[in-house]
Amino acid sequence: MEFPKGVPWVRYHGIYKDLKVNIIWPGKDLALGVDSVGTVSSSLVTYASIQALQPDLIINAGTSGGFKAKGACIGDVYIASDVAFHDRRIPIPIFDVYGIGARQTCSTPNLLKALNLKAGKLSTGDSLDMSPHDEAAIVVNDATIKDMEGAAVAYVADILSVPAIFIKAVTDIVDGDKPTAEEFLQNLVAVSAALDNAVTQVVDFISGKCIQEL
Amino acid sequence: MEFPKGVPWVRYHGIYKDLKVNIIWPGKDLALGVDSVGTVSSSLVTYASIQALQPDLIINAGTSGGFKAKGACIGDVYIASDVAFHDRRIPIPIFDVYGIGARQTCSTPNLLKALNLKAGKLSTGDSLDMSPHDEAAIVVNDATIKDMEGAAVAYVADILSVPAIFIKAVTDIVDGDKPTAEEFLQNLVAVSAALDNAVTQVVDFISGKCIQEL
Repeated sequence: MEFPKGVPWVRYHGIYKDLKVNIIWPGKDLALGVDSVGTVSSSLVTYASIQALQPDLIINAGTSGGFKAKGACIGDVYIASDVAFHDRRIPIPIFDVYGIGARQTCSTPNLLKALNLKAGKLSTGDSLDMSPHDEAAIVVNDATIKDMEGAAVAYVADILSVPAIFIKAVTDIVDGDKPTAEEFLQNLVAVSAALDNAVTQVVDFISGKCIQEL
Repeated sequence: MEFPKGVPWVRYHGIYKDLKVNIIWPGKDLALGVDSVGTVSSSLVTYASIQALQPDLIINAGTSGGFKAKGACIGDVYIASDVAFHDRRIPIPIFDVYGIGARQTCSTPNLLKALNLKAGKLSTGDSLDMSPHDEAAIVVNDATIKDMEGAAVAYVADILSVPAIFIKAVTDIVDGDKPTAEEFLQNLVAVSAALDNAVTQVVDFISGKCIQEL
């Protein structure tokens, strides 16, 4: 498979144990050179990857902010139990529910127990910072972690009926003292290594099992 | 062509004068029954439609809010000269530019003059309301109209190199006295008729011309 000309998406693939693994990276914006973060890019690459690869399972791995009031610390790795958006306010009945887009993720009780990972709710929005309106929605979403992609990946996976799990490593404390962007950049390398390690453990755990055993 | 199982997207198509016309509607959310509004849905359906149909031109037609301070009135039909996002704040150098995603649209000076349509800048976000943070960004974007899809459609059209124009009819005055959701619902039917009429005129104008003549 190849992605269409013009998109920055990158695919690495191979066989690991009994698994056909495809690692899809949204890549760097071709005009600006920065990572293609956010819900539009992640929903597109999820859609295109599902269409091309028909996966049995999606693992959305990435970094996130964490709320210390909910117990999150820098370097923690979470499996998201639920996802929702916090920046899609549509105050018309039922449209409001559509905007929030709350979804339960693929249940993985055995994986959580075996790897001793934390579980928490994930809230997604297209801003790295947090406005008061975002904060209010994040509280309603009961979120422990905050990212810029999860709920969009979950939406696409859900409508195309592919199970998805979300592994998020905490780079910054949203309700802490430090500015998010600074803390994010400071911790990105170390926390990425923790994420790398956790994803490897998850893939090892998945190997040889069916979805219902996770 | 058919869209994949699970997506609510709807395609109508036919020949009109010398044009092969495909009308793509994001459809109603299959779980909730409301229109699939917003940037994730519109970027996905734009991507899938371009892949399947390889169009020469995209017309993104829809409703929008308008700013009376910039001269917008209920029922006005605008062609967007520029698009940008107002709810993707990423305060890291260059990421901030990526988040705003400002793009000029396909230039159509002859179409604007011939049909006497208004031109203005469009700002896009996933909320129907407008938070103070959104408002500040909309001012920076110098926007006359505000919608929930345009900049996402423009992003996808841009990376896949398809020219796109944006026709937006004003259903509500954002900087007016009435609550947006109420005003939107009140005017939706009448303004949709104005949009319908304008899109027909635009398609008639396009017929027989190449992109450079628009």
